Amino acid sequence: MVQQRFIEDSIRYDGSQLSSLWAYRSYGIQGDSIVSFCGPCQVSFDKMVDLEDVIQGETIYSQGMLHFIIEHFELDLEKTVLRQRLFMTIIKEEIESKGQYRLQRKGDDLYWIDNEQQKRQKLSVSIATLSPVSTMIHTGLNLQTEGTPVPTVALAQIGVKDPEEFARRIMEKYSAEMKDIYAARCKVRGVE
Amino acid sequence: MVQQRFIEDSIRYDGSQLSSLWAYRSYGIQGDSIVSFCGPCQVSFDKMVDLEDVIQGETIYSQGMLHFIIEHFELDLEKTVLRQRLFMTIIKEEIESKGQYRLQRKGDDLYWIDNEQQKRQKLSVSIATLSPVSTMIHTGLNLQTEGTPVPTVALAQIGVKDPEEFARRIMEKYSAEMKDIYAARCKVRGVE
Amino acid sequence: MVQQRFIEDSIRYDGSQLSSLWAYRSYGIQGDSIVSFCGPCQVSFDKMVDLEDVIQGETIYSQGMLHFIIEHFELDLEKTVLRQRLFMTIIKEEIESKGQYRLQRKGDDLYWIDNEQQKRQKLSVSIATLSPVSTMIHTGLNLQTEGTPVPTVALAQIGVKDPEEFARRIMEKYSAEMKDIYAARCKVRGVE
Amino acid sequence: MVQQRFIEDSIRYDGSQLSSLWAYRSYGIQGDSIVSFCGPCQVSFDKMVDLEDVIQGETIYSQGMLHFIIEHFELDLEKTVLRQRLFMTIIKEEIESKGQYRLQRKGDDLYWIDNEQQKRQKLSVSIATLSPVSTMIHTGLNLQTEGTPVPTVALAQIGVKDPEEFARRIMEKYSAEMKDIYAARCKVRGVE
Amino acid sequence: MVQQRFIEDSIRYDGSQLSSLWAYRSYGIQGDSIVSFCGPCQVSFDKMVDLEDVIQGETIYSQGMLHFIIEHFELDLEKTVLRQRLFMTIIKEEIESKGQYRLQRKGDDLYWIDNEQQKRQKLSVSIATLSPVSTMIHTGLNLQTEGTPVPTVALAQIGVKDPEEFARRIMEKYSAEMKDIYAARCKVRGVE
Amino acid sequence: MVQQRFIEDSIRYDGSQLSSLWAYRSYGIQGDSIVSFCGPCQVSFDKMVDLEDVIQGETIYSQGMLHFIIEHFELDLEKTVLRQRLFMTIIKEEIESKGQYRLQRKGDDLYWIDNEQQKRQKLSVSIATLSPVSTMIHTGLNLQTEGTPVPTVALAQIGVKDPEEFARRIMEKYSAEMKDIYAARCKVRGVE
Repeated sequence: MVQQRFIEDSIRYDGSQLSSLWAYRSYGIQGDSIVSFCGPCQVSFDKMVDLEDVIQGETIYSQGMLHFIIEHFELDLEKTVLRQRLFMTIIKEEIESKGQYRLQRKGDDLYWIDNEQQKRQKLSVSIATLSPVSTMIHTGLNLQTEGTPVPTVALAQIGVKDPEEFARRIMEKYSAEMKDIYAARCKVRGVE
Repeated sequence: MVQQRFIEDSIRYDGSQLSSLWAYRSYGIQGDSIVSFCGPCQVSFDKMVDLEDVIQGETIYSQGMLHFIIEHFELDLEKTVLRQRLFMTIIKEEIESKGQYRLQRKGDDLYWIDNEQQKRQKLSVSIATLSPVSTMIHTGLNLQTEGTPVPTVALAQIGVKDPEEFARRIMEKYSAEMKDIYAARCKVRGVE
Repeated sequence: MVQQRFIEDSIRYDGSQLSSLWAYRSYGIQGDSIVSFCGPCQVSFDKMVDLEDVIQGETIYSQGMLHFIIEHFELDLEKTVLRQRLFMTIIKEEIESKGQYRLQRKGDDLYWIDNEQQKRQKLSVSIATLSPVSTMIHTGLNLQTEGTPVPTVALAQIGVKDPEEFARRIMEKYSAEMKDIYAARCKVRGVE
Repeated sequence: MVQQRFIEDSIRYDGSQLSSLWAYRSYGIQGDSIVSFCGPCQVSFDKMVDLEDVIQGETIYSQGMLHFIIEHFELDLEKTVLRQRLFMTIIKEEIESKGQYRLQRKGDDLYWIDNEQQKRQKLSVSIATLSPVSTMIHTGLNLQTEGTPVPTVALAQIGVKDPEEFARRIMEKYSAEMKDIYAARCKVRGVE
Repeated sequence: MVQQRFIEDSIRYDGSQLSSLWAYRSYGIQGDSIVSFCGPCQVSFDKMVDLEDVIQGETIYSQGMLHFIIEHFELDLEKTVLRQRLFMTIIKEEIESKGQYRLQRKGDDLYWIDNEQQKRQKLSVSIATLSPVSTMIHTGLNLQTEGTPVPTVALAQIGVKDPEEFARRIMEKYSAEMKDIYAARCKVRGVE
Repeated sequence: MVQQRFIEDSIRYDGSQLSSLWAYRSYGIQGDSIVSFCGPCQVSFDKMVDLEDVIQGETIYSQGMLHFIIEHFELDLEKTVLRQRLFMTIIKEEIESKGQYRLQRKGDDLYWIDNEQQKRQKLSVSIATLSPVSTMIHTGLNLQTEGTPVPTVALAQIGVKDPEEFARRIMEKYSAEMKDIYAARCKVRGVE
């Protein structure tokens, strides 16, 4: 079971949270988990794990984001990238379920197409990686858009007024989907 | 790379297509693949792999469906259930990208909510399982709705007029997403 | 989490229970599980999975046993043999915890040494194997000793008067130990 | 095959021995191994791998212990925790086989219940973890009890007068059990 | 350790030998093994595991071959194909080590180029596959060439006069190489 | 697919190239790859990953080598040692295919036996190891022989006059063989 926790304190995400057993060391959460909190986001180059960004000189910065840190205690990174994509889908489905705003998913990125301005605005950053004992995901959703390196949209602009309540629903859905996926694996006979 | 093939002949899906190396034996496609075809769907109880359906006495029947058979040559079924969920998401995103129709995903099922009739109509059936040498997915999307065991919606009712062209786009997107997921696994350094 | 269930009906163990998804098909238990029941034990040669017994012409027979069927939905048989050994240890520890009777474990077999008669008496049979979708364990503990192929001891002779209550405690301990083992995996940092 | 070696020199266990290829670098033992030695035990906080202890501020200290370092060259930590539990069981069985002293196992901890004083005394410390190329276990059994952070019992108090001879028997049994477990994996046919 | 055994009786290879635990059921060899014997080779279509041959209508027939059956008790087929390629290499190296005859390896096939006749002659057939509990390899080397479906060369024509002695050397080298490969895995530290 | 790249600049191999994502960070090659270049070779003790060399005090030095760096994004080191052995075989087969020079393979080492001087001369160094996100191979083939710690032979002495063209052929063959091995895994049905 994927344990869920929303941390009410603001935490500056600087990449150090994407390290093994962060949830256990910080909050006593032992086992697979998803933890969420709000706070600014600034990752220095030496903490960046996405070498694509490093190569392209892209920085990760936001004055305010809703963050998620996910940890699964196994070592198959491709599997955790699959989980990450599904996690982005869950966020997209949740925002769209309110009926008004439509998002576009490109791999692990979510965008909002502002039809008036005909402009694609980025909602999210996300990365999946390996630690020595687990695989981990970080996803950040913009709460503020000032000063971001690319045009961005904030959750409040697309209908999400209460980040905590939104985070709790997303975490609940992710945990439920992971449980359901394991159950799906446990109901089929093999074929020839 | 996931190879793609649309079979223009109508094929009756009776469950026998969900067996290892079906694409290789039938069409010479060697390696991970996604194959699509149209045809009726009727799976007898002894061919059903979803024991949940067997236990609940649910039959799988449709006069016409757009079928997909996916095979990945590895043995982690949970991972292939993750792929299956993402595949259903790709179908949903493709249908919704035309702007008019909204679907709901519940695990590996897709539904259309007919707002006039306030009725949930099922678009899809899907299952993922293990063969002795691979993992496999079957997904069927309704082309016809007469005589189905539950209320259903057909692709044509939600904007998909050309199943073949739709199938080709879906297969292209699935293959691209799988390639992109592997690439995402190959661009990150590990963390502590 | 390993789900637990004691079946109150008597069931003749003939080897057919050691097949994938038996707990799901029979009792609706989906996922990793341990199920227990009482009943005779007779496995015909074609149902025997332990080829060592087949080669040596050993039959498996008892007029009454307390049975356990364990299923873990992964495919590492060596790992499930490790679980099986630990399961036998849990049974041994539970019997010995009452203070009076001492057992001897030889691999996956439990024996009682009758000090008066200086005779080794077998308490258990056990096997671990692979199904197409899972790994499985069967363990049987003698409730009766008449007609067994080798000298045996029954649970009642070594202090276990209530098999159901004993089974429930064993299942609880196995489930707790498996949970604890996963937790132990989720509390350590890696080393150099 | 798990190679065995008793080191006659006293070695202070400070956590640095729990690193990959320690047996190879120090003693030329290449491959899966169990190595034993006697010596004091003091692990500084930065060397502790059990974050549960770190969080709870528990220190690991003993003036004298019988140590075991086990290394298996694969990367499934849950599997090595299963091995660790079985290893503790082997120690318990060996001590109890002399007939007089009874131990209690709680997960990976061994205790002796002193019936006169009605006090639980700890015999062991143990941890399992991952290195970049292997999984590893450390187990320490008290040879002295002065100054330990919790009430402890020493091997000599429960019948083990010769630690080296005891260590050699334990290592022999662990190696034999691992070999037997692999053999058990290689004698069964699969089931449906 | 890969156990080795040469069977002196002639055995007709009909594909039934390529089934799990054949060495254990037939000769009591438990664990990873390589077994060799001489005998004709005729595999009926329903026993063929190489669907490439089935599709192309190729039959497998020889009046006399030196056969090898290899079994590894794990489930990674790609890894066993790697082992198979290395096994063919070992055969090639052994034949060439006598100095006179040169072979050509194409994947898992060995050929001899008869320079006088400028003709490529096939020495071997080989296949690797999965059983429910293991991976398996069959390799056959021609002892006779009459009636084979393609032009073939026999071992005796390329300097191997004593098939049994040759088989024993090949098995010894395969077993040693597998041991050496595991050792190579156990002597390196990880890198960044 | 294993991507191939020959780097025309001379690069001093000092061990730092054997680190994860080197090909991606240096040349933008994302995914499994084999990269080749020429340059001197000098690895300081702290960069050596082969602890066998470290223990034996063996240094790695050459004034000029043809280097190959291979990276596979999975974590099974034994499997990559199998790949490494096959890679050495491909080099051997390519050199021998010209007809004149015969090499000897000992594990992952290639030697040339100079028949006149009756001396064994080493052609290669090679190592396989794990990074946090991949497995990696380095192989170096001597271009110069002055000052090497053991008697060596250079590629030019055994018929390879154009290292770049040779490297390109080797990389092409390795990539093709890996592709072929995966294909071989995808054409067989399982057996009993």
